[in-house]
Amino acid sequence: MNIDWLNKDIPAVNEEYEKKAIQRQNNLTKPPGSLGHLEKIAIKLSAMQACEKPAIDKIQIVVFAADHGIAEEGVSAFPQAVTVEMVKNFARGGAAISVLAKELQADLEVVNVGTVSEHEKLPGVVMQRIAPGTANFSKQAAMTQGQLLESVNAGRDAVMRAKEKNTQLFIAGDMGIANTTSATAIACALLNKKPDVLAGPGTGLDNKGVIHKAKVIKESIELHADKLKNPLDVLQHLGGFEIAALTAAYISSAQQSIPVLVDGFISSIAALAAIKINKNVKDWMFFAHASAEPGHKIIMDVINEKPLVDLDMRLGEGSGAAVAVPLIRMACALHNNMATFEQAGVSNKD
Amino acid sequence: MNIDWLNKDIPAVNEEYEKKAIQRQNNLTKPPGSLGHLEKIAIKLSAMQACEKPAIDKIQIVVFAADHGIAEEGVSAFPQAVTVEMVKNFARGGAAISVLAKELQADLEVVNVGTVSEHEKLPGVVMQRIAPGTANFSKQAAMTQGQLLESVNAGRDAVMRAKEKNTQLFIAGDMGIANTTSATAIACALLNKKPDVLAGPGTGLDNKGVIHKAKVIKESIELHADKLKNPLDVLQHLGGFEIAALTAAYISSAQQSIPVLVDGFISSIAALAAIKINKNVKDWMFFAHASAEPGHKIIMDVINEKPLVDLDMRLGEGSGAAVAVPLIRMACALHNNMATFEQAGVSNKD
Repeated sequence: MNIDWLNKDIPAVNEEYEKKAIQRQNNLTKPPGSLGHLEKIAIKLSAMQACEKPAIDKIQIVVFAADHGIAEEGVSAFPQAVTVEMVKNFARGGAAISVLAKELQADLEVVNVGTVSEHEKLPGVVMQRIAPGTANFSKQAAMTQGQLLESVNAGRDAVMRAKEKNTQLFIAGDMGIANTTSATAIACALLNKKPDVLAGPGTGLDNKGVIHKAKVIKESIELHADKLKNPLDVLQHLGGFEIAALTAAYISSAQQSIPVLVDGFISSIAALAAIKINKNVKDWMFFAHASAEPGHKIIMDVINEKPLVDLDMRLGEGSGAAVAVPLIRMACALHNNMATFEQAGVSNKD
Repeated sequence: MNIDWLNKDIPAVNEEYEKKAIQRQNNLTKPPGSLGHLEKIAIKLSAMQACEKPAIDKIQIVVFAADHGIAEEGVSAFPQAVTVEMVKNFARGGAAISVLAKELQADLEVVNVGTVSEHEKLPGVVMQRIAPGTANFSKQAAMTQGQLLESVNAGRDAVMRAKEKNTQLFIAGDMGIANTTSATAIACALLNKKPDVLAGPGTGLDNKGVIHKAKVIKESIELHADKLKNPLDVLQHLGGFEIAALTAAYISSAQQSIPVLVDGFISSIAALAAIKINKNVKDWMFFAHASAEPGHKIIMDVINEKPLVDLDMRLGEGSGAAVAVPLIRMACALHNNMATFEQAGVSNKD
């Protein structure tokens, strides 16, 4: 197994189709710019897909699920059993992302990269269980180098399956009790930010809980400080199997020229890690929603992106990304199907 | 013809179903509140529809089109001919709202309440042409009392046609060169705000154009000041046939217990006028999008609502409302189809 692929080149998007798309937008029967971000989405997607009529009919949603040793420190409002229970709920169609995937006619796949509990074989669930959860990173590295490799390659594997299906948009989601603690620790380490600035309530901690969570993160970063030399070190010591898999999936998707729609807090921190590893990955990313988790805005500011919607969501699972999909589809429909001034015989601006 | 119906009672939404919906949201397999505004949408729609499984399968979009005498004052970036040209474009399927209506499988109807130019009979276009545009309100009242009555009743007629089709969501849009000038004047008169605070670029005025537009509005309000005693006076003197029709349509829709999704700048000012006429209309309203027209935020603050999306759009036609529809549909799907903790065997919060 080899991790070098993470640094391999990411193709540039097509500038010629970008220019054509801008021209087309300016000829459609509306005041120039009046469709706002929907125009930008269509133009960006035209450049990514190198075509005049962008479309996202085939969507792959992959939820990476794993448990976190750091849950021992009492950093989540929910018990750890929930991770596997939710994997079953995804498979049975009862979770938010299951409902949304069905609405969008998107393919949904769950990849179990390391829950504490085992479970029976389930339809739509790929078993790549690296270990029964990460180690407690307040005491030791969250994972071994070998486990990091496995997580990263699980991310790539998911993209390769999506590629075989000619996916036009890749969405990754996360499930893992205590994973906002891991993600926040990763973000603090990558950005050299204080945990009390980035830590938030996650699934529902009270103020006292958030203060405790920030303290656990602070002490953990101090413990590993001299080993956090690059983004992969950070993922190994403070990750998340699912967060490492997400990070790698984004890079792999961009390498395969498949546009990515980034979900909320956990996903954006994986996106941040991906950008730190291979910066051109950002050219292939849309950012779906502003998470209610307070640290998310800080991450978005660092990445210099404004998400498409702000609905006060904080669920994970890829749910915020799924909710934003119809906006992208409508941006495509408008771009592809509106009449031009000439076609419609409508007078242009004076 | 009679205008008294505008003040007739608007039914209350169903509080029992509202409570049931809140309970259900708290039992679904997600941290409570983690679906943010989508939860609120589903709860509100449950209360409006008085049912456990809210849905908006049948949607009626009505674009009211009319011309404005105030266009003579050079307050728009586009020539007046565009109003009728766009009516034809709506009918032929080439306009933004035509494309969006098709995507949503919504019914689209255009009501010509007063374009300057005549046009041939067009499919999907209802002719209720009150006059060839309003009068120039910088010189005289925009319309007579009789014309106001006709506009208002055209709004109600559209809702009655929608009701016959069992519409579950009513969207109204606007088309009319110079109508941001009329709408801004109405808002200034209703809220006693200065035109330079509320006037914006509309379809694309430059700074100089915006200053001129504000001056025209200021002088017009001064001209009619002693006649602007109530919201109907304001609509008569500074309207917009299409704006008066929109205002009335909102009230009629609420009276018929049909939820309304309000579009952007013009529509929100019609909504404001509707609330000033019959305040309970607001119980039946969702606000779709934050318009790029700078005055829109001021209107939203006065109404005390935060629109669902902010996509920097400023097109009118009901396009921002149409774009927000999938969010409401997904809110319903999540509410109706997600599993509860009990059904899924998922552990709840500690």
